Amino acid sequence: MALSDLKAVKRNEAGIAAVLGILGQRFGERFQTGQSMREQHAHTTTYIPTQAPDGVVFPQTTEEVQEIVRACNEHRVPVIAFGTGTSLEGHVNAPGGGISLDTSRMNRVLSVNAEDLDVTVEPGVTREDLNAYLRDTGLFFPIDPGANASLGGMAATRASGTNAVRYGTMRENVLALTAVMADGSAVTTAKRAKKSAAGYDLTRLLVGSEGTLGIITSLTLKLYGIPQAISGGVCSFPSVDAACQAVIATIQMGIPVARIELVNALQMRALKLNSNLDYPESPCLFVEFHGSETGVAEQAEMFGEIAVEYGGGPFSWTSVAEERTRLWKARHDAYWASLLLRPGARGLSTDVCVPISRLAECIAETEADIAEMGLIAPIVGHVGDGNFHVLVLMDVNDPAEIALAEKFVGRLNMRAIAMDGTCTGEHGIGQGKAGFLEHELGSAVDVMRAIKRALDPNDILNPGKILPR
Amino acid sequence: MALSDLKAVKRNEAGIAAVLGILGQRFGERFQTGQSMREQHAHTTTYIPTQAPDGVVFPQTTEEVQEIVRACNEHRVPVIAFGTGTSLEGHVNAPGGGISLDTSRMNRVLSVNAEDLDVTVEPGVTREDLNAYLRDTGLFFPIDPGANASLGGMAATRASGTNAVRYGTMRENVLALTAVMADGSAVTTAKRAKKSAAGYDLTRLLVGSEGTLGIITSLTLKLYGIPQAISGGVCSFPSVDAACQAVIATIQMGIPVARIELVNALQMRALKLNSNLDYPESPCLFVEFHGSETGVAEQAEMFGEIAVEYGGGPFSWTSVAEERTRLWKARHDAYWASLLLRPGARGLSTDVCVPISRLAECIAETEADIAEMGLIAPIVGHVGDGNFHVLVLMDVNDPAEIALAEKFVGRLNMRAIAMDGTCTGEHGIGQGKAGFLEHELGSAVDVMRAIKRALDPNDILNPGKILPR
Repeated sequence: MALSDLKAVKRNEAGIAAVLGILGQRFGERFQTGQSMREQHAHTTTYIPTQAPDGVVFPQTTEEVQEIVRACNEHRVPVIAFGTGTSLEGHVNAPGGGISLDTSRMNRVLSVNAEDLDVTVEPGVTREDLNAYLRDTGLFFPIDPGANASLGGMAATRASGTNAVRYGTMRENVLALTAVMADGSAVTTAKRAKKSAAGYDLTRLLVGSEGTLGIITSLTLKLYGIPQAISGGVCSFPSVDAACQAVIATIQMGIPVARIELVNALQMRALKLNSNLDYPESPCLFVEFHGSETGVAEQAEMFGEIAVEYGGGPFSWTSVAEERTRLWKARHDAYWASLLLRPGARGLSTDVCVPISRLAECIAETEADIAEMGLIAPIVGHVGDGNFHVLVLMDVNDPAEIALAEKFVGRLNMRAIAMDGTCTGEHGIGQGKAGFLEHELGSAVDVMRAIKRALDPNDILNPGKILPR
Repeated sequence: MALSDLKAVKRNEAGIAAVLGILGQRFGERFQTGQSMREQHAHTTTYIPTQAPDGVVFPQTTEEVQEIVRACNEHRVPVIAFGTGTSLEGHVNAPGGGISLDTSRMNRVLSVNAEDLDVTVEPGVTREDLNAYLRDTGLFFPIDPGANASLGGMAATRASGTNAVRYGTMRENVLALTAVMADGSAVTTAKRAKKSAAGYDLTRLLVGSEGTLGIITSLTLKLYGIPQAISGGVCSFPSVDAACQAVIATIQMGIPVARIELVNALQMRALKLNSNLDYPESPCLFVEFHGSETGVAEQAEMFGEIAVEYGGGPFSWTSVAEERTRLWKARHDAYWASLLLRPGARGLSTDVCVPISRLAECIAETEADIAEMGLIAPIVGHVGDGNFHVLVLMDVNDPAEIALAEKFVGRLNMRAIAMDGTCTGEHGIGQGKAGFLEHELGSAVDVMRAIKRALDPNDILNPGKILPR
């Protein structure tokens, strides 16, 4: 998809003017229209150009969100929910202008139910804030997409990350949520029971809807006990294929691996440029196990045996926290390390997800494509789920490089789809992948459109995303 | 809710006559209108009166389902998907007549992807058939609602059962599905990737929609490796409260219990009438662990220590298959055993689910209510999830007894809802619980109605269920 394919959303100047007046009067200093504030709220962490909203409002309660949405709906003005702005596919852009609804002042932890292993938070609480808040409870919220994203944003984009293989994604970890719908009504999708067969699963419908069906104003999340013990380590493999075979065997044996991250040879080179890592520039798996002392030792030993069977290893593991932290810091710094491969460049981060049986093939074809296209583009993957990321390093001021990167992303998406996979495992559709949704899901997209029309007939909720009209 | 509250669905005689003609001509012996066949397809396993369809059709392909649905939609005739008829809330009744679409001849396993731990099946495959088919692969499908239900029906009702605490419900275990929508289009909701952030989660929208939004014609399900070792046993407790405290502690410690079933004192009496069980007539937990040899031993020991801490035990456990099978057979026969408490009676089976912190209180109040109302009604619970069942034994020919049982169920549902729980953890809404959905979810039900209207404007898909008009 080329940038020119970004669907325009027609500006409704009269409506926008009316809403600017209403919100200015109602919210005072909590409504801002300065240029830098507006641009900051359309800032995306990729190359997609900034499309700023006309104003930014900072509500503090569900009722205030309702007021804002009602005004926007009445005047047919876009309203775009904003968490921390760390999404990667242009989710917070305002292609038709309108209002950015910043949830950062809705940042209270409303209740921790330790016996039920759940917590209810406002959407602006970030995952690191939540875990800091929980520190004394022995509980934690595991989902970790890398960035210190807001939990509302993570739910809205169905985020996941390194330990989804063990704990699931936001899909599995949101128990219930309250959302303001396009007509201004506030609905709560479920009670706190761990399971329910009562009616349509509106929780899962809103999780991943990217602010196009409703604006999340509170969420109830599952929590987990902090594991008694953690073991982990790094293991080199002669090839991506060998590493993937080891992953498949690990999952098939039911070893409850908590993280299993593939780093390809080029990415290893970058990590070594950035950290002091004693591993060769060959594909590696970063692995972690959570459980009892004996459990994590047993699991690490079993994984080590599997690794050797597939030509990898030796797997040196540790349950010493400092040593594990050093290894994982190297892995978590992959983005910054990658920039060292081409100083001055910026990275286009994209992700796909395929059935794990096709993963080695998909990565091999992608590496060949990278070589053939002359790109510098390291790969890391949450391979237990079949999910991997490519970071294309490019000069964002060179249209030819952007066009080449987009061509590459297009081929990658279509390759993943052809392998019975998805054009995005965790980044979402936003603007950047809207052109691929129909390739992936065909007529199911018509059903999505019918739902969008039914729930947001005036197309005010984050228009131009997922399903541009 | 009284029976009189069952919403009528107006019969469209002309449309029904037209569709009977069309299907008779098209499907020959695969379309039946005999009375016993029709009544059998409205048979419900509870006391809700039979409301028979006008005909029963046995399609064999998605395309045939599309033909049937198109004919029904054109002539505004209800079409009710039928699996094995083991649902408990009147899901397969035909209050406005119409066509029962029996999926039993769509019973092929389409593909097993062992490396990906998934399988794609037609909806008429039952869970026991699937596990028999998988026997040589080392894999299994864990969800076990008791009955040998069809997998299509289990998805449609968001079924779960004894081991949901470990493996989740159908919500977590359906990766993708193909469904025929009200307009006759067939949509596939997702690819086989383990996770995806691509668009609205139509998979989860259809799972639990009870045939009111689409008719499932194939499903891709997650599989699991058969555990290397299983341990389990039974543990008595002085009270339901003590047992629930032990369950909470077990879950909080992160012990990955595979099943943890509460049986109350009256239910234990029934089990002892039916089997040779050496346990007192006091509340018991039936517990099972899946994992490695050392893992399951460690987990059983840890659970035993917790049980003693809460006044229970001793917990005698075994990893010998025959002994475990005998114990679980006693538990699985709970329904039949219960009938021995009142020979000649039939059982009204109902379920609710609450946050686990409220479970002991909810069961205690329910036991008090049972005593006060003079009912005979044993309780079993999937207590790791906060889910429990009450079987009210009654003379279904005595309207006063039915009224009393319904009053009890109403109070139970409202009690669960007041405790931040749900009126059904796994049985679904159907007809029997339609009166409680709005109490539980308030204005969220309006959102459900908007979706139903958008996707099934003529209300042909299982009308009168979940959201009676």
